[in-house]
Amino acid sequence: MSEKLEGNILVTGTNRGIGLELVKQLAESTGEEAHIYACCRAPEGTRAEALRDLTTQYPGKITLIKLDMSDEDSISAAVQAVSEQIGAGGLNLLINNAAINKPDIPAPLSATGKRDMMDVYETNVVGPFLIAKMLLPLLQRAAEINSPAKGDKMSCRRSAIINISTLVSSIEKCPETFDIAQMYPYRTSKTALNMLTRCQAEDFKRHNILVTAIHPGWVRTEMGGEQAPLTTHDSVHGMLYVMPFLSNKDCGILLDWQGNRIPW
Amino acid sequence: MSEKLEGNILVTGTNRGIGLELVKQLAESTGEEAHIYACCRAPEGTRAEALRDLTTQYPGKITLIKLDMSDEDSISAAVQAVSEQIGAGGLNLLINNAAINKPDIPAPLSATGKRDMMDVYETNVVGPFLIAKMLLPLLQRAAEINSPAKGDKMSCRRSAIINISTLVSSIEKCPETFDIAQMYPYRTSKTALNMLTRCQAEDFKRHNILVTAIHPGWVRTEMGGEQAPLTTHDSVHGMLYVMPFLSNKDCGILLDWQGNRIPW
Repeated sequence: MSEKLEGNILVTGTNRGIGLELVKQLAESTGEEAHIYACCRAPEGTRAEALRDLTTQYPGKITLIKLDMSDEDSISAAVQAVSEQIGAGGLNLLINNAAINKPDIPAPLSATGKRDMMDVYETNVVGPFLIAKMLLPLLQRAAEINSPAKGDKMSCRRSAIINISTLVSSIEKCPETFDIAQMYPYRTSKTALNMLTRCQAEDFKRHNILVTAIHPGWVRTEMGGEQAPLTTHDSVHGMLYVMPFLSNKDCGILLDWQGNRIPW
Repeated sequence: MSEKLEGNILVTGTNRGIGLELVKQLAESTGEEAHIYACCRAPEGTRAEALRDLTTQYPGKITLIKLDMSDEDSISAAVQAVSEQIGAGGLNLLINNAAINKPDIPAPLSATGKRDMMDVYETNVVGPFLIAKMLLPLLQRAAEINSPAKGDKMSCRRSAIINISTLVSSIEKCPETFDIAQMYPYRTSKTALNMLTRCQAEDFKRHNILVTAIHPGWVRTEMGGEQAPLTTHDSVHGMLYVMPFLSNKDCGILLDWQGNRIPW
């Protein structure tokens, strides 16, 4: 058990919000051997300026990767680019953070159409499904060469997938939050992501790859809105404190940013 | 509380399997005032012969409706056709039974692609989402004119949506069944359908519309396979026994064909 993450780490959706803060705190907290693959739709665009600043601030530590989670060819090209650079160590940690929410909050039924349902599922579920499938050989490689001498087999330092989920993915807790924001497309997609997490956990346990879903809290981002109680700093700080302690018992479950279990 | 269903009932996916048996047993068990709207992709096709035979066997009791759940225009046209015929009584019960499963069982990760994920979600989740949204005025009408003098407000005789789900939608129970058939697209879609059920339950309770998800059991159909333990007759008999007893307490939950609760 260790208090910080190491190795090769890939994060999606990193040009702003939680993804940007994940790259920042990972760059700060990891050692010299760690490397961060920071993915976003347009690394050269005006909306990725803060991300590009981080690559200057931490020279050689971060590789920017162009990745659109709604586009299978883009995912394939991104995985190819990572494969060519990553070397013998493989990929230790994939953090599926990229996600969209349509239509605008509160997103009532009357304002929600087929396109919203399909687009949100494509980016929030099918994207994570495809990138995990394509990165599996790199995750397996990391799992193989980092077999621990004793103790639990699984860890985020060895080989892991963290799917960023949400409290509103919880079917059990739906009645508590539905009146605030209906968000049929977002809710159904994130519930499906929880099932994807559980399937991957079952599927990949033979490779000793840990798979866990994490709710980052209600965070003051473009998606979370200004009235959200949590800063991106505190949310990410919490998640990065929790991740290194995850082990076999946490595989296939949903936790919040403080490590508390959320019911399905 | 009553032991059989009545009123105007719409069932999707009725040319074979569970849907066909639902129409058969509903035609047999309901009274003269009941009417069944039996939807399938090609009511005139060779694969709907058994369904057409039922319309002959029960004259005036069943209306066949052309409906492709993956096609928004088709859903819209079907709803229009039902609206024109249904009259002042509105729609008492919508049974979302139509569903697909791709790729072929056991549907491992290696055989599963983006198209499978998108297609299965489109038919199994977005279709039920759209048809419920479009039928909402007819369901509201039935709820309004059938207000009970006393007792529970919600029932399948008054106004209800039954979403046919499955045991393999349960995230909790995923480890028990994953090794038999991985089925990422089907599992994630049906888990999303459970969330849709819960959202609809919250959304429509102000209209007194009951929304419940039901697992029909592992049934010997084209989808279920020959080794399945349950006949379509017994599965449908069970579900039609359970449905009339559903009330407020069952809104927004997942039951099996014998009325037992399944965890999310």
